[in-house]
Amino acid sequence: MSEESAPGPKESPSAAPLAGSREAWKKGGRLLSVLLAVNVLLLACTLISGGAFNKVAVYDTDVFALLTTMMLLASLWILFYLLRTVRCPDAVPYRDAHAGPIWLRGGLVLFGICTLVMDVFKTGYYSSFFECQSAIKILHPLTQAVFVIIQTYFLWVSSKDCIHVHLDLTRCGLMFTLTTNLAIWMAAVVDESVHQTHSYDSSHSNASHLRLTPDRESGSSVGGDCSCNTAICQIFQQGYFYLYPFNIEYSLFASTMLYVMWKNVGRLLASSTHGHGHGHTPSRVSLFRETLFAGPILGLMLLVVGLAVFIIYEVQVSGEGGRTQQALVIYYSFNIICLGLMTLVSLSGSVIYRFDRRAMDHHKNPTRTLDVALLVGAALGQYAISYYSLVAVVVGTPRDLLGGLNLAHALLMIAQHTFQNVFIIESLHRGPPGAEPHDTTPKESCHGLTFANLDALHTLPACPPTPRLVGINPVGPQEAMAIILAPRGHWRRRCLKDISLFLLLCNVILWIMPAFGARPHFSNTVEVDFYGYSLWAAIVNICLPFGIFYRMHAVSSLLEVYVLS
Amino acid sequence: MSEESAPGPKESPSAAPLAGSREAWKKGGRLLSVLLAVNVLLLACTLISGGAFNKVAVYDTDVFALLTTMMLLASLWILFYLLRTVRCPDAVPYRDAHAGPIWLRGGLVLFGICTLVMDVFKTGYYSSFFECQSAIKILHPLTQAVFVIIQTYFLWVSSKDCIHVHLDLTRCGLMFTLTTNLAIWMAAVVDESVHQTHSYDSSHSNASHLRLTPDRESGSSVGGDCSCNTAICQIFQQGYFYLYPFNIEYSLFASTMLYVMWKNVGRLLASSTHGHGHGHTPSRVSLFRETLFAGPILGLMLLVVGLAVFIIYEVQVSGEGGRTQQALVIYYSFNIICLGLMTLVSLSGSVIYRFDRRAMDHHKNPTRTLDVALLVGAALGQYAISYYSLVAVVVGTPRDLLGGLNLAHALLMIAQHTFQNVFIIESLHRGPPGAEPHDTTPKESCHGLTFANLDALHTLPACPPTPRLVGINPVGPQEAMAIILAPRGHWRRRCLKDISLFLLLCNVILWIMPAFGARPHFSNTVEVDFYGYSLWAAIVNICLPFGIFYRMHAVSSLLEVYVLS
Repeated sequence: MSEESAPGPKESPSAAPLAGSREAWKKGGRLLSVLLAVNVLLLACTLISGGAFNKVAVYDTDVFALLTTMMLLASLWILFYLLRTVRCPDAVPYRDAHAGPIWLRGGLVLFGICTLVMDVFKTGYYSSFFECQSAIKILHPLTQAVFVIIQTYFLWVSSKDCIHVHLDLTRCGLMFTLTTNLAIWMAAVVDESVHQTHSYDSSHSNASHLRLTPDRESGSSVGGDCSCNTAICQIFQQGYFYLYPFNIEYSLFASTMLYVMWKNVGRLLASSTHGHGHGHTPSRVSLFRETLFAGPILGLMLLVVGLAVFIIYEVQVSGEGGRTQQALVIYYSFNIICLGLMTLVSLSGSVIYRFDRRAMDHHKNPTRTLDVALLVGAALGQYAISYYSLVAVVVGTPRDLLGGLNLAHALLMIAQHTFQNVFIIESLHRGPPGAEPHDTTPKESCHGLTFANLDALHTLPACPPTPRLVGINPVGPQEAMAIILAPRGHWRRRCLKDISLFLLLCNVILWIMPAFGARPHFSNTVEVDFYGYSLWAAIVNICLPFGIFYRMHAVSSLLEVYVLS
Repeated sequence: MSEESAPGPKESPSAAPLAGSREAWKKGGRLLSVLLAVNVLLLACTLISGGAFNKVAVYDTDVFALLTTMMLLASLWILFYLLRTVRCPDAVPYRDAHAGPIWLRGGLVLFGICTLVMDVFKTGYYSSFFECQSAIKILHPLTQAVFVIIQTYFLWVSSKDCIHVHLDLTRCGLMFTLTTNLAIWMAAVVDESVHQTHSYDSSHSNASHLRLTPDRESGSSVGGDCSCNTAICQIFQQGYFYLYPFNIEYSLFASTMLYVMWKNVGRLLASSTHGHGHGHTPSRVSLFRETLFAGPILGLMLLVVGLAVFIIYEVQVSGEGGRTQQALVIYYSFNIICLGLMTLVSLSGSVIYRFDRRAMDHHKNPTRTLDVALLVGAALGQYAISYYSLVAVVVGTPRDLLGGLNLAHALLMIAQHTFQNVFIIESLHRGPPGAEPHDTTPKESCHGLTFANLDALHTLPACPPTPRLVGINPVGPQEAMAIILAPRGHWRRRCLKDISLFLLLCNVILWIMPAFGARPHFSNTVEVDFYGYSLWAAIVNICLPFGIFYRMHAVSSLLEVYVLS
């Protein structure tokens, strides 16, 4: 340090001494909380995975006890945090404008409400045979309801905070809450997989298949009068399994918001009101006026057709044996058409960006970095399933119509994930609408405006680097002028908005199908015969939750792309 | 950039516009290469994992064909890179001083030589029954030998490069080579696990255990005169299985170096000859003079005792049945003592740092960031095994001596990994020796020096903030003075050097045991009975390679800590 006489101190000149005095080594504090989270998470992971296997002497009551304890502790920490920030207003000197956008918080509330309904159903289900159950099974959904309410309120009010008191404690608390959410997520995913396997086993009573998790449901309700026989109990049981996807999404949404909060602990921003262009809110009036309508209409058509296909598929597969083949052909055909269109549309979006001259946004933005990492990471799940399908179809012997459809489906799935990710990530890194890269060729763009409308330019105070269309004040002389000035950019923007809406609607239907129980992976016998049931079930049950989360996350990212473009 | 902090001191301000003109969006180029790598890696992963299961119709020849193709392509790209950089000297304007330190490159060469020996053994083994084997099985080790030679030379000369031509092509090439190494690593790990399971099955011919991978070895050599009966063939087969750990380490070393090169593509450094303090080479004379000798001596003792314990364990476990219990008691006792000492020593190292006033090094350093991520990530493997053991011992019924030892072992393993990681990571983030944080209290440290030796201070041109002990010119008046001036710092440094040497030697012995085949996880019946053989084998076979890599990586990091402290 002394000898090298380094030219540049790292922090921004004004903030450096403050950072130095407040926290000598940020990574150290982060390391501590990560170590805590890793250890708690691994313990939870061990118990949850152990509880899923019938052979292992870990019972689901152990898992429920662990989760209940974790939720109580996390709730206590959240209450402590809320009290402290209320009583000490200068604890949060900065707020990150990128963190916790309204659609993320809205989604959180929506999924939170569904989780509450699920908890009611669960409580009802377990209350039906209270006398022969452990009390923890009823305590668990009640605690979860309390936890969901507290956490949703906490994330609604605090998700933008950059807190500057009790740094290490806050980091550990946030990481612990994050770990709690991930543990709930894991437990829900495992429980759902066990349920799926159970219903698969009861429909395919084929003794040659090795069962990954045999009959936990029936095993737990064994013992005379303790079975779920009443109609209300059956409804509760069916209901809470259909609501699991929302619980899963709620946990993941909360996790991403908590992670961003954790990254923002002790962060110094230049100014809390510093505008970045990204924080602008579009006027409600022009929200849907600026599309070509082709994207939303085509997307809505696909959504409706997809719902019909999904219902037909479910009816035919759960019915008698002979119609499964036909159901699979319909399902795969629809998916191939949908994925093919999405691939083409994503590609054309990327082509449009090749002609777009907006500057890339190089600002540091933890929310965006996390979004990109989640998009790429969650796509791995579907990639893995597709590659395993690919190998099974190519190497396996029977080459029929269904094999061909499966092959096309797997290939298109890979292509669609790749091109959609490229499109979304490039969109998220673009600057605000109409911002040309004025630092490289400011003169040229200025002259371009001059040629387009010379006299309009004179009404401006100075040569504007950015013809801003979506401003805080949409009605005014500047807006009309901007439309005249940049018709080409406007056409591109409309296309991009259409593309993002179309992709959004397609992702919704591709989310609905697997999230609500379509499993062509098992109806189709190619992979099951090739890999054996236990291996293929392990692959699908581990990877598919990531695939489902990818769709959900792509929807929220595409919504952001739509608003920003 | 406007928000929080500038990217780092090393990115020179004058170079920023250059970066803008050269590469508009660095993340885009990276995204492309990551997508390529992910897809190739998943394809390789599918084939390799499919080939490991006997039931699946993927043969090991398919895997060998894929790996051979990948290695040939990677070799071609490396040759192209080397030719291009030789013919165009200004392609590499900067070199990263942190990348490819001498011990990493030395280790790479060492492991590369062992891999070459392994390839000779493999070629010999498969040549023994050439007539009934596919030609690809002999082609594969030969190609691997060529690939290892080319890649080792490439990494030796180019690992510090920050290349600035053909950015996207170079990124894709580096990522492809990295993927090839990871695929080789995966194939080696799977092959070794299959071999371990096979030898476990042949020793425990217990029909109740479900075998994860039954008899691939014997299956491949079935068919009359094609079995490996000659003595030389047996030696070849035994030999190459003992050399697998080196191949695994070689692939991982090469992967980390390639990753750092990939991060450095298109990177702009302030000056290629700018000293950072970290790049200093200690004088060979004082390398071992500065320790208290307690650490190395205790470490060597543990190393020798550990080797003896390992041999006793192997002999007793592979012998007749009755001695396994005794062997396990010896093995666990040694490990508990070793891990306990390491935990205490790491903790005391962290305590010493609490009194250390050296500044934290906040420079951007991709090598160090990767090191830290690998340490934390690779520790997850051993964490997972320990938590699964923990649950099995606590929940399981038999509570005897072995159960207690197993419990203590698992707990200490978790503690040791945690505290050692904290110690290493804190060490790596310290500034160069003796660098006090002069920006916070420069006056005080200056006065401290004045009181210690007033007249020596007057011989200096100015009040020195850092009494530098290990300099470029170790013999001179300043060195003697520095020793007089800062005896307390010197004592601390000796302690830290002792601690790092002790931990290093302990990690070596803890690496040798699992890497050369000690598997108390299966000799011990607690976990096998609790989880069932197939589940426990899956857990251990997936997690243990990471645990072994952690030891290896900790050794190289501790060597760096030793040199730096």
